[in-house]
Amino acid sequence: MATAGPEIEQLILLLARLPGLGPRSARRAVLQLIKKKDSLMVPLAAALERAVEAVTVCEVCGNVDTRSPCHVCADPRRAGSGLLIVVEDVADLWALERAGVGAVKYHVLGGVLSPLDGIGPDDLSIDALLKRAPEFEEIVLAVNATVEGQTTAHYITDRLAPSGVRITRLAHGVPVGGELDYLDEGTLSQALKARTRI
Amino acid sequence: MATAGPEIEQLILLLARLPGLGPRSARRAVLQLIKKKDSLMVPLAAALERAVEAVTVCEVCGNVDTRSPCHVCADPRRAGSGLLIVVEDVADLWALERAGVGAVKYHVLGGVLSPLDGIGPDDLSIDALLKRAPEFEEIVLAVNATVEGQTTAHYITDRLAPSGVRITRLAHGVPVGGELDYLDEGTLSQALKARTRI
Repeated sequence: MATAGPEIEQLILLLARLPGLGPRSARRAVLQLIKKKDSLMVPLAAALERAVEAVTVCEVCGNVDTRSPCHVCADPRRAGSGLLIVVEDVADLWALERAGVGAVKYHVLGGVLSPLDGIGPDDLSIDALLKRAPEFEEIVLAVNATVEGQTTAHYITDRLAPSGVRITRLAHGVPVGGELDYLDEGTLSQALKARTRI
Repeated sequence: MATAGPEIEQLILLLARLPGLGPRSARRAVLQLIKKKDSLMVPLAAALERAVEAVTVCEVCGNVDTRSPCHVCADPRRAGSGLLIVVEDVADLWALERAGVGAVKYHVLGGVLSPLDGIGPDDLSIDALLKRAPEFEEIVLAVNATVEGQTTAHYITDRLAPSGVRITRLAHGVPVGGELDYLDEGTLSQALKARTRI
């Protein structure tokens, strides 16, 4: 087929690599960009340019922000927080912040232990976590409920044990708004075990 | 919630306006961009910048390209083509090109007649179509099978009648790979009427 010019094809290829966009939707996105050149394409190009300059990783917690320490670490309302939430990924941190979990602090591991993928303890931000641990009363290991996530949680629990900090994990249970019918047996039995008084 | 810096939030807002991305997936896309800063974010910023400069609308057919006349109009293999395909939108032109419909030429209307939205004949590229019509033997009105599309097709047929060019439309029928069970009655009855010998 006749192509639409190398600049446009290149843009489609790059957009198709974003999560949630495939080759077809990237093509639609590019057409949308071109249609709304002044109101969308030009601002997006400028915003990307600015973000490339500004984005940095927080040296304290590993969050992604335009300053280091990041907005969360520098937030004065969280200064005395005794609660540290350990997450796998920046996306998890953002999800918890969207949920409005309160004046807590975070630590981003940057992944989970996965020997098959060659990811060991040195590839994660675990040493930095051990250094921060004594500042807190409680550390919540909010890793995903996957095999790798749970392995990582066990490993970190062992490493943190000497510090004497209380270590917890997120509750398992029925998702809010979820239907029992569609839940797997593991979740259901955990939810029953951890039942609470109404 | 603490935000992630104005540059990042701005980027999320803009990406969320692309078709196929919502606020949540835009957030994920931005995290992906930041993670792959050198291999994805920087090239994407540069590609957008270049595309903003390069993109133009073909003065002959209305296609979007980096040159005018566009690659399709300038293609020497299509020089003597007697077939002009009229489409609503550039996306339709690209879809037909992907389908490899052969050495044809196109004309992009830029929409369909829609009195409710205040879109009349003067808002579409109909006069330009009338001027091009005598160059061709056959004009396929490949507008969408919606009420507005069909209204537009009728209007254009009336306007083209004096030129004496043969005017056709795309066949209705069962989509290739489609299951009869899921098809609407209109399509099924059209497919039966237009049945062909095996």
